[in-house]
Amino acid sequence: MQLGFVSAIVEELPLEEVLALAGRLGYDCVEVLCWPKGKAERRYAGVSHIDVATLDTAGAARVRELVARTGVRISALGYYPNPLAADLEERRLAAEHLRVVIDAAALLGLDTVNTFIGRDPGRSVDGNWPLFREVWPPIIAHARQRGVRVGIENCPMFFSEDEWPGGKNLAVSPAIWRRMFAEIPDHNFGLNYDPSHLVWQLMDEVAPIEEFASRLFHVHAKDARLDRAKLDQVGTLATPLAYHTPKLPGLGSVRWGAFFAALTDARYDGPVCVEVEDRAYEGSLADRERALRQSAAFLRQYVA
Amino acid sequence: MQLGFVSAIVEELPLEEVLALAGRLGYDCVEVLCWPKGKAERRYAGVSHIDVATLDTAGAARVRELVARTGVRISALGYYPNPLAADLEERRLAAEHLRVVIDAAALLGLDTVNTFIGRDPGRSVDGNWPLFREVWPPIIAHARQRGVRVGIENCPMFFSEDEWPGGKNLAVSPAIWRRMFAEIPDHNFGLNYDPSHLVWQLMDEVAPIEEFASRLFHVHAKDARLDRAKLDQVGTLATPLAYHTPKLPGLGSVRWGAFFAALTDARYDGPVCVEVEDRAYEGSLADRERALRQSAAFLRQYVA
Amino acid sequence: MQLGFVSAIVEELPLEEVLALAGRLGYDCVEVLCWPKGKAERRYAGVSHIDVATLDTAGAARVRELVARTGVRISALGYYPNPLAADLEERRLAAEHLRVVIDAAALLGLDTVNTFIGRDPGRSVDGNWPLFREVWPPIIAHARQRGVRVGIENCPMFFSEDEWPGGKNLAVSPAIWRRMFAEIPDHNFGLNYDPSHLVWQLMDEVAPIEEFASRLFHVHAKDARLDRAKLDQVGTLATPLAYHTPKLPGLGSVRWGAFFAALTDARYDGPVCVEVEDRAYEGSLADRERALRQSAAFLRQYVA
Amino acid sequence: MQLGFVSAIVEELPLEEVLALAGRLGYDCVEVLCWPKGKAERRYAGVSHIDVATLDTAGAARVRELVARTGVRISALGYYPNPLAADLEERRLAAEHLRVVIDAAALLGLDTVNTFIGRDPGRSVDGNWPLFREVWPPIIAHARQRGVRVGIENCPMFFSEDEWPGGKNLAVSPAIWRRMFAEIPDHNFGLNYDPSHLVWQLMDEVAPIEEFASRLFHVHAKDARLDRAKLDQVGTLATPLAYHTPKLPGLGSVRWGAFFAALTDARYDGPVCVEVEDRAYEGSLADRERALRQSAAFLRQYVA
Amino acid sequence: MQLGFVSAIVEELPLEEVLALAGRLGYDCVEVLCWPKGKAERRYAGVSHIDVATLDTAGAARVRELVARTGVRISALGYYPNPLAADLEERRLAAEHLRVVIDAAALLGLDTVNTFIGRDPGRSVDGNWPLFREVWPPIIAHARQRGVRVGIENCPMFFSEDEWPGGKNLAVSPAIWRRMFAEIPDHNFGLNYDPSHLVWQLMDEVAPIEEFASRLFHVHAKDARLDRAKLDQVGTLATPLAYHTPKLPGLGSVRWGAFFAALTDARYDGPVCVEVEDRAYEGSLADRERALRQSAAFLRQYVA
Amino acid sequence: MQLGFVSAIVEELPLEEVLALAGRLGYDCVEVLCWPKGKAERRYAGVSHIDVATLDTAGAARVRELVARTGVRISALGYYPNPLAADLEERRLAAEHLRVVIDAAALLGLDTVNTFIGRDPGRSVDGNWPLFREVWPPIIAHARQRGVRVGIENCPMFFSEDEWPGGKNLAVSPAIWRRMFAEIPDHNFGLNYDPSHLVWQLMDEVAPIEEFASRLFHVHAKDARLDRAKLDQVGTLATPLAYHTPKLPGLGSVRWGAFFAALTDARYDGPVCVEVEDRAYEGSLADRERALRQSAAFLRQYVA
Repeated sequence: MQLGFVSAIVEELPLEEVLALAGRLGYDCVEVLCWPKGKAERRYAGVSHIDVATLDTAGAARVRELVARTGVRISALGYYPNPLAADLEERRLAAEHLRVVIDAAALLGLDTVNTFIGRDPGRSVDGNWPLFREVWPPIIAHARQRGVRVGIENCPMFFSEDEWPGGKNLAVSPAIWRRMFAEIPDHNFGLNYDPSHLVWQLMDEVAPIEEFASRLFHVHAKDARLDRAKLDQVGTLATPLAYHTPKLPGLGSVRWGAFFAALTDARYDGPVCVEVEDRAYEGSLADRERALRQSAAFLRQYVA
Repeated sequence: MQLGFVSAIVEELPLEEVLALAGRLGYDCVEVLCWPKGKAERRYAGVSHIDVATLDTAGAARVRELVARTGVRISALGYYPNPLAADLEERRLAAEHLRVVIDAAALLGLDTVNTFIGRDPGRSVDGNWPLFREVWPPIIAHARQRGVRVGIENCPMFFSEDEWPGGKNLAVSPAIWRRMFAEIPDHNFGLNYDPSHLVWQLMDEVAPIEEFASRLFHVHAKDARLDRAKLDQVGTLATPLAYHTPKLPGLGSVRWGAFFAALTDARYDGPVCVEVEDRAYEGSLADRERALRQSAAFLRQYVA
Repeated sequence: MQLGFVSAIVEELPLEEVLALAGRLGYDCVEVLCWPKGKAERRYAGVSHIDVATLDTAGAARVRELVARTGVRISALGYYPNPLAADLEERRLAAEHLRVVIDAAALLGLDTVNTFIGRDPGRSVDGNWPLFREVWPPIIAHARQRGVRVGIENCPMFFSEDEWPGGKNLAVSPAIWRRMFAEIPDHNFGLNYDPSHLVWQLMDEVAPIEEFASRLFHVHAKDARLDRAKLDQVGTLATPLAYHTPKLPGLGSVRWGAFFAALTDARYDGPVCVEVEDRAYEGSLADRERALRQSAAFLRQYVA
Repeated sequence: MQLGFVSAIVEELPLEEVLALAGRLGYDCVEVLCWPKGKAERRYAGVSHIDVATLDTAGAARVRELVARTGVRISALGYYPNPLAADLEERRLAAEHLRVVIDAAALLGLDTVNTFIGRDPGRSVDGNWPLFREVWPPIIAHARQRGVRVGIENCPMFFSEDEWPGGKNLAVSPAIWRRMFAEIPDHNFGLNYDPSHLVWQLMDEVAPIEEFASRLFHVHAKDARLDRAKLDQVGTLATPLAYHTPKLPGLGSVRWGAFFAALTDARYDGPVCVEVEDRAYEGSLADRERALRQSAAFLRQYVA
Repeated sequence: MQLGFVSAIVEELPLEEVLALAGRLGYDCVEVLCWPKGKAERRYAGVSHIDVATLDTAGAARVRELVARTGVRISALGYYPNPLAADLEERRLAAEHLRVVIDAAALLGLDTVNTFIGRDPGRSVDGNWPLFREVWPPIIAHARQRGVRVGIENCPMFFSEDEWPGGKNLAVSPAIWRRMFAEIPDHNFGLNYDPSHLVWQLMDEVAPIEEFASRLFHVHAKDARLDRAKLDQVGTLATPLAYHTPKLPGLGSVRWGAFFAALTDARYDGPVCVEVEDRAYEGSLADRERALRQSAAFLRQYVA
Repeated sequence: MQLGFVSAIVEELPLEEVLALAGRLGYDCVEVLCWPKGKAERRYAGVSHIDVATLDTAGAARVRELVARTGVRISALGYYPNPLAADLEERRLAAEHLRVVIDAAALLGLDTVNTFIGRDPGRSVDGNWPLFREVWPPIIAHARQRGVRVGIENCPMFFSEDEWPGGKNLAVSPAIWRRMFAEIPDHNFGLNYDPSHLVWQLMDEVAPIEEFASRLFHVHAKDARLDRAKLDQVGTLATPLAYHTPKLPGLGSVRWGAFFAALTDARYDGPVCVEVEDRAYEGSLADRERALRQSAAFLRQYVA
């Protein structure tokens, strides 16, 4: 495994400095976010460390040179929109830019792009399924042609009343992953597995690793603290941030020893990228560097 | 405390036989359901053992005579519609019949009517609040005038995709109860507390009893088994019947010893009515009698 | 479900008194043991309440008359030898008498005979498999012809150094049950499920019920206390009585509420027979009656 | 085992009615309290159902006749003063009356008297030891001469600031029992074991039974609920009623199944007497009868 | 947060070497103990690394220079006497020297002094309260004038029979902290929070952090192992060292991940100082340096 | 304590490189395996980093020089055969070579040799005891003469059907250790304690440390993950690898904090050697170096 981080947390730094910082803090790789240029639509979104829309062979060579110089690899390109948005224009733009990101990955010699399935939050899972069957097969086919794997992060994109009731990503549970892979069995369609989202859905965050071993393309190391005292007041029908808090690895409820044990037993040997979404560490750039330093110190006991 | 059951489970029996059965099985009381005459709109709904629309003084005397003869009391009248339904006509009819049930309770010399707050399932809790403020104050005022207490059952009325996403009853958690009682502090506005619904919302089903002691007007003894193995597959964002099963008392996850300890320490001395919604015991009338016999055998170790 | 007990515990009583006792103590049925006449070869073995070797139509009629008179049914005939014994003569006699018991069940109009698979304790599970394939298919075929189901109890028959190392019954775990039923898929080949044996093998004693629902022909209600303090001294490689104690229902580690919840959800509606093997209650006949009275008092909260 | 109750809870009834009530509620025996006549010095103290000071042969015969008539035995005589009180006069009177109770037990043909060791609460355990060595050997010798066993209840007699800091009974833990029995090894010196007091001292309430099997003369069935939420606010250095509540059997933290399993495995076959000190059931005599009826219903699943 | 240690563990080193050692071992700061010169009255007491009685402007400048040179800050001055001692002279001297330490902190430009409330161990909490009200308001007022915060460590100062029964510091639990801050609401009156003492009082060591966030001035990182096997023998009424052992961070029962999660969520950004009181690491100076090295290695996964 | 590793994992490296690697990875010592030259008879066996059969004074001096040069000590010599093998020749060779290893340790100035008791797997523990009494006393006497301690590893040597039923080492549990040391009380007869084997035998892996403190000569740091889901399918009567997996420290079920707390409280100050038997890290030499690097990173938080 290679230890990395998601570039969103240092959005103000140019790619070169992101990679240099990673090297300085002892990371092996970085997941580089590639949103379209323009304003972010939500917290943690909109970051772009490579402008994939304009990336050409020369640009790709420059990126590769940065990688060679810093010794820090790019684990994947990441772009997390809502490809099943209720708004048709948003839906179209998401699919379109996703293809651009996939093309860029191929151009950069990378094998993985991470994203979301998306969801119309006003419809049930069944209600979204026809959209899934319409939107996703061509994207996965395109990626296959480019030799790129698509890793779906299992984040429900449901945190507060803004995304009520259904959230903006269907791929939230083993039950739904099975349904997705039954629908699209392509070997380049898999998961960007983040244990923290299973924690606050009150699921075992380790058990699915064995079954989905062949679908694990990328891993996010984020933690979440389930707050039992708050859950006792509001119950699971409340919006999720009412009873849990995203935290740095080691400060939440993920059982990291068991998690890495399962990854190694599944013979997973890919990237594990810290995703910093802990509000207690999101002040200054120094705070965020501290978050990355601390996360590396914590995770290195499990990833040499 | 008095041990009873909710009359819904023996809907085919006339009131006289319901009370006689209760006496034969060792129960002290029965919660008598009083839906408007007409077809049931959902499972467990539509039962009417007293036709409150036509109840007059003579009819009330006949009911009282049955009670005296069988020695089995009526713990409360129950009617569980959706007074905040999105459909305006449904909403109006619910409030209207609820007033009739309250009047009937007064006529029968009973002090309690049990019901739901209701909810427009397509709106969030905040989105429902203006409806709550419009519909409920006059109902509670009416009940106060009649000397009747209104006990709100804490059932989310959300079980499967039919009630997605929000369910049909707002009163699901301590956080919302506090908000309800802050809005309408009347002493005749309280709870018909059912521990099973807290279990499957992953809340402590015992802890709220101390804080809400003065609001406990009635108690339902239903159990629910939280199925961890299924929850691990679907998570709490799934529809609730995907990860829990309603069961007879003693066959689920409610901690009954702790539950009755809390009730006694809160000096609760009212009815505790078994609500049979365990599919394994819903076949013949004999099956349902067996369910009631077994529930009494289980609960009598905690309620002498 | 019908509550019963295994007749072994009152071996000195004739059948008539066994059934009468059952009725007096509030039991619905009795599993009647039918060992060949002769001396017992081990504790709890050798009991015979019906001499099946000599049973004819007239004898069967007398038994049926006893049942009718006492109102206590016979849940099954039981005979628990080692049909895979290393000793060829013992092996042959076991199979032979088992057929006699099956024939007797048919003659008595009973649908179930309970027994063990047996095992050569000196060989591994794999080492025993050829014996299983040789001995069992003809027995099950014979029972099918007679319209009798064969329920295999999941007791390892391994308690102390006497049965070291492998015990005298192969059918100890879900993994082996699957193998058995894959080998002999006949619908009259199933289980006499005893949760206590899973407890001391450190297995979940409730979880298998859902998967094996269609194979549950009979249930034993025995409890076992796993003694953690003793296990810490000797470990699971020791002989099992070094770290557990068979106990009456409610005095051990079986989670009875969850157990009966699973049985009802699996729609099991057959007999549940108390098997008394608690040394603290095995003195006088009065002690053993007390054991049966107490077990009924405990179990009636789950089986009305 | 015989199920009974401690007579303190029905102090207003004469002995005859106490025994009759026991019989009516299905109890086998009663522990009869025998305080000196006069006013009670604390809650639950001062009760006297037999005036031992004046008991003569004729009086003893009358008591025996009551026992024969009601079929309810006297499990023991109980008197729970502070024989190590700081006040010398109190100390002297306690020892003196204790001898009278022992003599009365002998006269009544009873083999057990229950009491406390006592303690000067202002001194440490070590500080009390010289008093223990002075006061207790002659009492136990006297009892031995009379053929009476002395069962020491393990109640710390420390509940609120009134008994701060040390409580009024030394015999609170296995460590101290060992010290007591090392000091006075007489076989008529033992325990009146009450599991509830171990619960709130955060000890295993079941484990000591095996080691102290030969010292178990009498058992109290009282429960106690350890309130974790309150303990989190005050800690174990607070006075004990700040974090626990005495409750009826089944409404607290005692693991009754494991408790009776241990008693049976230790071959304990003496009395188990319910001690009602649950404030929620201490109102009218009817409330207290209800407490006794409920306790019997709960315990009969473990004591046939 | 800044990682530091309490200077007591290296009492034989002069301040300069203490700070240099801290830097060498990767610590950010040191809590410097400032007892009056003279012999220690108990283990861990009596250490003085700055003689505050004689500290003048020149001396303060020298200390500041040391800090600047080593890059290791002074987190606070510490002095832990018994300001409510039963002995009036001891009580007076404690308050007097505490003022001197507060003055020294001001002179050194430090904002925090750590200490104990103290307690007359022979009186209950209520019995001590008048002393608290007499002694503490003027001290806190004095500190406020000097711009210094006073952090009260929550150590009960009760370990063995020497401090029986009440210990020498009132400030042991959230319940008492609330009472203290209600009495003296000044914003410069707060806590030096040590989770280990809550562990052995069987309290949640993490939960209070949210409520007392604004009162957290300083944190001690000490661990304590609650020994359940020993507690089962002696109970919580025994002296505390009979059932727990102070240990280095990571070798006890404190849940460090949850602890630092709570601190970060409370936005605590002050010092966290290791307090070494683990007898297994108290031999030579090399042993104690090893203790500090190991503690830093453990804690750096949570404090970058 | 000194952190080391067992040399088996880098069997292809000569001793000099083994020690150099240890130094580079931050280890203090290495347990050097000394099997007789020849082919390995099982996984992890047969490794020889010092040819003890030919070791003379000059050879010993060369080894000591390597130790001095690298600064990495030899914690012990290790040789793990079956000295109680059923095969007499195997048994004889084991004892013979064990003496050679003991002599070599003395020649090298080392105080410890690690090995197994051995076992005839086809006989029970009692059945093996006469062999133990015959084989072991002379070996321990020989070691005592040489001033060498013999540390018995507590590995059952039972993993799969190959070693069924009894495994190849008697020394598996505290109960058996007591029996061993009662038989041979010599102070140079002790344990090479490996917590992982207690984990999969479902024993407390920490508790025995206090009792056996004086017998702890050497410690192995291996972890094992008990797989509850698999255990539920097969039970403890299955072969052990069916329900557990050997893992690197931190990736299994050993409670390392509690483990090192117990070691320090027992004042253990000897070597703790990582034993890598985690299949996920056994590929290339680079993989195995990674395993050692990661294990050191994990363990250094507990062993400075």
